[in-house]
Amino acid sequence: MESIIFTTDASIVLAELLGGIRHENLFIVADKHTVGFCDRLFEKVDWIPSHVAVLDCGEEYKSIESVSRIWMMLSKRGARRSSILVCVGGGVVTDLGGFAASTFKRGMRCINVPTTLLAQVDASLGGKTGFNFNGLKNEIGTFSIPEKVIIDVHFLSHLPVRERMSGFAEMIKHGLLSDREYLTRLLSLEYQETSPEDFLELIRRSVTIKDEIVSQDPREQGLRKVLNFGHTIGHAIESLSIMRGMALLHGEAVALGLVAELYLSVKEKGFPEEIYLEVRNFVKRYYPNYPLMEHVDTLYGLMLHDKKNERRGVNFTLLPGIGEFSLDNYCSKDLVVEALSQV
Amino acid sequence: MESIIFTTDASIVLAELLGGIRHENLFIVADKHTVGFCDRLFEKVDWIPSHVAVLDCGEEYKSIESVSRIWMMLSKRGARRSSILVCVGGGVVTDLGGFAASTFKRGMRCINVPTTLLAQVDASLGGKTGFNFNGLKNEIGTFSIPEKVIIDVHFLSHLPVRERMSGFAEMIKHGLLSDREYLTRLLSLEYQETSPEDFLELIRRSVTIKDEIVSQDPREQGLRKVLNFGHTIGHAIESLSIMRGMALLHGEAVALGLVAELYLSVKEKGFPEEIYLEVRNFVKRYYPNYPLMEHVDTLYGLMLHDKKNERRGVNFTLLPGIGEFSLDNYCSKDLVVEALSQV
Repeated sequence: MESIIFTTDASIVLAELLGGIRHENLFIVADKHTVGFCDRLFEKVDWIPSHVAVLDCGEEYKSIESVSRIWMMLSKRGARRSSILVCVGGGVVTDLGGFAASTFKRGMRCINVPTTLLAQVDASLGGKTGFNFNGLKNEIGTFSIPEKVIIDVHFLSHLPVRERMSGFAEMIKHGLLSDREYLTRLLSLEYQETSPEDFLELIRRSVTIKDEIVSQDPREQGLRKVLNFGHTIGHAIESLSIMRGMALLHGEAVALGLVAELYLSVKEKGFPEEIYLEVRNFVKRYYPNYPLMEHVDTLYGLMLHDKKNERRGVNFTLLPGIGEFSLDNYCSKDLVVEALSQV
Repeated sequence: MESIIFTTDASIVLAELLGGIRHENLFIVADKHTVGFCDRLFEKVDWIPSHVAVLDCGEEYKSIESVSRIWMMLSKRGARRSSILVCVGGGVVTDLGGFAASTFKRGMRCINVPTTLLAQVDASLGGKTGFNFNGLKNEIGTFSIPEKVIIDVHFLSHLPVRERMSGFAEMIKHGLLSDREYLTRLLSLEYQETSPEDFLELIRRSVTIKDEIVSQDPREQGLRKVLNFGHTIGHAIESLSIMRGMALLHGEAVALGLVAELYLSVKEKGFPEEIYLEVRNFVKRYYPNYPLMEHVDTLYGLMLHDKKNERRGVNFTLLPGIGEFSLDNYCSKDLVVEALSQV
C-alpha cells in the first residue's frame, strides 16, 4: 500500500519529501485550476515552472491526448525513472498523471497531492490509474501504487459544495462497508460546525477503510470489488448524464447508485430496510434529482458494458448488512429497473 | 515468470489452451506479414476474422497509433478482462500487443506466439512491453508478464537469414552471460546442418538463461540490467541507423554493441581477450559493417539519453568473465569512442 500522509500544510511535507531531489528531476502535472496552488505548494522547493504540464479541466479531457502531453513533457525535459512526478489536482489529474508515470520508461516515481475530497478519500488512493477511451470511462489504465499521497484538508476550503458532497458520497460508501457508528456520524454531520482537524479525522477513517480492502486485493480479483458498491449503477448514471449534456459529478451519480444498489441489497440479501431509508433520505435531501426512469434501457445497456460485468448479465456487489459483502450477484433487468425507480 | 511452451506445432498448443474459450472472447493482433500464419494457427479453434488487428510492419509503426488501433478493436468488440489477446508476430507485435493487453481495462489475458528468432529468445519473454515515443525507443511501456508464450521452431523456416542472425545475437549474449560451452556451441554452429529439434533445444537454453535472470528481478532494479549487455551501444547504433535511413535490424545493432561492450569489459574488468576476439571475428564475419566512427558524437549523445542512464554519464553493465556481471560502470567518452573504433 502507498504511504499516506495527513497534514494541514502540504508545502512542509513536500519540502521534506523533495529535499534531496535536484530540481531537474522534479515534474508536476496539474490542471488550469489547481496550477494556481503550485506556487504556494512548492515555495520551499527548488522547482522549474517549465516542468509543469497544465491540463484542461474536466472529465472530457481525461483522454489519451492529455496523457500524451504529460509523456511529452517528461520525454522532452529528460525525465528518468528516478525522477518524480507530483500530481496536483482532483481524480482526473491523479488518474492521468498516475497512468503517465506508471508507463513512462515503464515506471517512474509518483506522488499524489489530491485537492478534492473525492480524490482524497478515493481516486488518488489504491493505485487505479487511467483515462477514458472510445467513450467509456477508464477503459484504459494500470494498477500502479503512488509512492506517497499527501492529504491536506485545507484544499477543501476552496471546494464548491457540490464538489464536497461528491466526495462525501464515497465516504458514505465507506461507512456502509465498515460500521454503523461511522455511517451514523457521517449522515448527521454538520459540516459548517466541524473543524478542519476533525474533518481530517473522518477522511483518515475513510482512507483506512479503503486501504484495508485494497491491500488484501490490489488487482481487484475478488474482495476489492466491494469498493464498486454503488458504482455499477452510479457509473451508468454518470455516463448517461454526460451523454445528455447535463453532467452529474462522479460522486453525485454514485450517491444515486448507492440508493439503487442498497435497494437491491434489501430485496436480494436482506439488508436492513431502516438503514436503507436513512441513506435514501440523506441522498434525496443533499444530492441532485435526476430523471432516470425515462432512460432505463440506456442505463441498463451502459451497465452491461461496464468492465466488471461478465457474460451472465449485470454483476453487482451487494450488502447483506453493514460491513458484510456478497460478490457476484446477477440481478434481472426487472429488478434493476425497480431499483432505479426508488432513486 | 510466464509459462513457456516449446513445440513444433503451435496450432495444437493453441487448440488446447483456447479449447474452453468462446470465440467472442478471443482477439488476435498480428502484422501484415504474420496475419498470413493465422488461418493455419487457429484452424483448430473457433475464431472470428473480424477480431484481428492487423498492424503495419516495422519499427516505425511501433507507436501510440498502433496501440490505439488494438485498444479500439478490443473496446468496440466488447473485450473483457477475462478475454484473451493472442499476439502473433515479432518483437514489435508482441511489445505493442502486450502493452495494449496490460492496459486494456487495467489488464486482460495475453498469449504471445513469437514468429521471429529474436522474439522467441528475447522480446516476447520477460514482460517488457512498450512503444516508441518522441523518437525514443520504448520510451513508454509496462512490465507485464504474458500468461503463456508459445515457441514454435517452424516459424523460423520462413525467416530471412538477416532476421535469423538478428535473433542469434541475443543468443550469443545469453552465452556470454552464462557459460563457455554454450557460447562455443553457438559460435561454431552450422545452421543448415542443424535439425529444427536441435535448434529448439538451443532456444530453450537461451530462454532458460533469460528466465533465471528475469525471475530474480522482474522490474529491472538490479540484476536484470545484465540483459542490457551490448544494448547501451547497440541501441545507439540502431537509432543512428534509423535516423540515417539505413536501418539495421535490432539484433544486428546489438551484435556490434556486444563487440564494443566486450572491449570495454576487457579494458575495465579484465574480460579474457581471446574470447572477445572470438566473438568479434564471428560478428565481423556474419553481421553488416557500419560506419560508426563518422558519427561518434551522435552515438554518444544517444547513449546519454538512454533510459538506463543516470546523471553521471553512460552507465554500462560489464563482464569480468563469462557468467560474471559488474553493474553500473561509468565509462569516459574517450574509452567509449575507442571501443566503437574496434567494431
